[in-house]
Amino acid sequence: MDKKENTVLNNKEDSIGEFELIREIERLINSQVKTSSDIILGIGDDCAIFRPSRDMDIIITCDCAIEDRHYLKEHFSPFEIGRRAMVMNVSDIASMGGVPLYALISLELTPGIELDYVQEIYRGFLSVLNPLNARIIGGNMSSSTHISIHICLIGGIKKGKALTRAGAGVGDLVFITGFPGQSALGLELILEGKREDKYSSLLNAYLRPRHRLKEAKKIAESGLATSMIDISDGLSGDLSHICEKSNVGAEIYLERLPLNESITTVCKEKGINPREVVLGPSDDYELIFTCRPDSADKLLKFISSISDIKVTQIGRIVEKEKGIRLVFQDGSISSLNTPGWDHFKISR
Amino acid sequence: MDKKENTVLNNKEDSIGEFELIREIERLINSQVKTSSDIILGIGDDCAIFRPSRDMDIIITCDCAIEDRHYLKEHFSPFEIGRRAMVMNVSDIASMGGVPLYALISLELTPGIELDYVQEIYRGFLSVLNPLNARIIGGNMSSSTHISIHICLIGGIKKGKALTRAGAGVGDLVFITGFPGQSALGLELILEGKREDKYSSLLNAYLRPRHRLKEAKKIAESGLATSMIDISDGLSGDLSHICEKSNVGAEIYLERLPLNESITTVCKEKGINPREVVLGPSDDYELIFTCRPDSADKLLKFISSISDIKVTQIGRIVEKEKGIRLVFQDGSISSLNTPGWDHFKISR
Repeated sequence: MDKKENTVLNNKEDSIGEFELIREIERLINSQVKTSSDIILGIGDDCAIFRPSRDMDIIITCDCAIEDRHYLKEHFSPFEIGRRAMVMNVSDIASMGGVPLYALISLELTPGIELDYVQEIYRGFLSVLNPLNARIIGGNMSSSTHISIHICLIGGIKKGKALTRAGAGVGDLVFITGFPGQSALGLELILEGKREDKYSSLLNAYLRPRHRLKEAKKIAESGLATSMIDISDGLSGDLSHICEKSNVGAEIYLERLPLNESITTVCKEKGINPREVVLGPSDDYELIFTCRPDSADKLLKFISSISDIKVTQIGRIVEKEKGIRLVFQDGSISSLNTPGWDHFKISR
Repeated sequence: MDKKENTVLNNKEDSIGEFELIREIERLINSQVKTSSDIILGIGDDCAIFRPSRDMDIIITCDCAIEDRHYLKEHFSPFEIGRRAMVMNVSDIASMGGVPLYALISLELTPGIELDYVQEIYRGFLSVLNPLNARIIGGNMSSSTHISIHICLIGGIKKGKALTRAGAGVGDLVFITGFPGQSALGLELILEGKREDKYSSLLNAYLRPRHRLKEAKKIAESGLATSMIDISDGLSGDLSHICEKSNVGAEIYLERLPLNESITTVCKEKGINPREVVLGPSDDYELIFTCRPDSADKLLKFISSISDIKVTQIGRIVEKEKGIRLVFQDGSISSLNTPGWDHFKISR
């Protein structure tokens, strides 16, 4: 690579500017992604244009990742930063049962940043999008005092088939996928400087999360689930979003919360209650979904036909007046007041 | 308003958090905007969902406004900041002949910011969107070290009717709307502390720009224009984008560049050449478009049937090898090398 192209975004002679940077990124994107007949116009004009399929509703979400706010820059490679930011958005589209199609990315970048660093962030995006045949069709880059990644992700879903937070009814069972809480523990280990092999599954949960698109799509297609959300705020925080939008309450059976060996081992080391970790703030990108009791077996079979993911029934939906409460093994009950991540009140 | 609600995004007792802030903004949006049957799901879930009309292509753009980078915070009211950021995006949709439909807004906000300040930014957004029946359907807010506004705007256009940068052909005439350069002069006056009534049209061009949606839509509908772009980088910068994408060059007739009294008066005061200002970096959100010479009269009549905007033929498209060049009144020619705004090389 020519020396001139090593850094971008500053005024120095050996730097490339905005338009050259955009061209470099265009080249990267075009080299990796197949063209598609539904894209009328990709990156390079004022706007992108696509022709939606006739039988589809369009699902759209946006989310952002700001350095040292949503992720700790020193602990992530640029590839992981890009990957994680895209997984976060794919998970939102997945949580409604949709499939990602197109992404637009608005980046804030610091002057003097290495071109290779920016390219690696994009390679992270593409590592998530390429296997899904989804494409980056537009975006924008600005010089700023920090790095932040604002992604707008557009997906499609069969007309009227989207699954929202709003359909849970009293008596429905509450299910979750996987083992939430691992990401929060991974973050703690990193902050304590414990990047050790024995913790790799927890570290990966934080540094290299994956989405549950395949399972979410199957759940939506079944027509059997009544509501769904992904866990980005934490199990109890996101369950409370379902309850709020569905106008219901929920009971969680504490002893049913799924724990794996990684969680129990580290919690033992730390002397903390693993179930508090499972319920608390953690961005695991697992799914919470609800269904009528008489549909549960069929729905679980549907999921296990395409995935060996662990699915656990952790509770059931109750009347709104009861709020969200924990049921202990001895039958005693306590109200649950753990909020999810509140980015404005939590400074890290 | 309750004292508790005066500030947001910090850890203090009298502050509201992310979820409450989002609810306040939801209330504001829902109070001003009519519901629409094409929106299946608006703000409040993981994603928004809309059902695109069968005869439409979807146009999508994103752009951002960062405080003290894209706008000088001390000189703008929050309403103006929101208004300007939204005009910028509407102008991009307009430049292809499209109509804005839905917006998603990803905001970075500083801890301790006043709730009213955030609401005013949103009122600025809505002041642009409401007259167009376009709606905010989603978004996201994060605590950050500065304010930045990332807008993703989605529009519609009749299938196959979008006008791009890529259609200009040799011999086509080059037209512009209005009087570009005013915004750059407005910015200079503000930096010099000259917010005086006599400069109001220049100051407004910078602080309260408007888009040319109505005219752009008519130009695209006519089917007579061969390319179009909005002026956000500056006349010569954006004309060079048309030339690049259309694989052509252009001649600009210097004496034809439109000047109004505001421009000539201030340039005289400053002792600078007004035509350099007209050609230079300035975000005026006017239009540049091209058409075949034999369509020009008809196209101009089309525009004047719905708008009294001044439209000026400033040049014509030539072979690519000739580049972009200025033609002086005496027939002499000089090459034009004025780049548009390069946000990474220009620090203000």
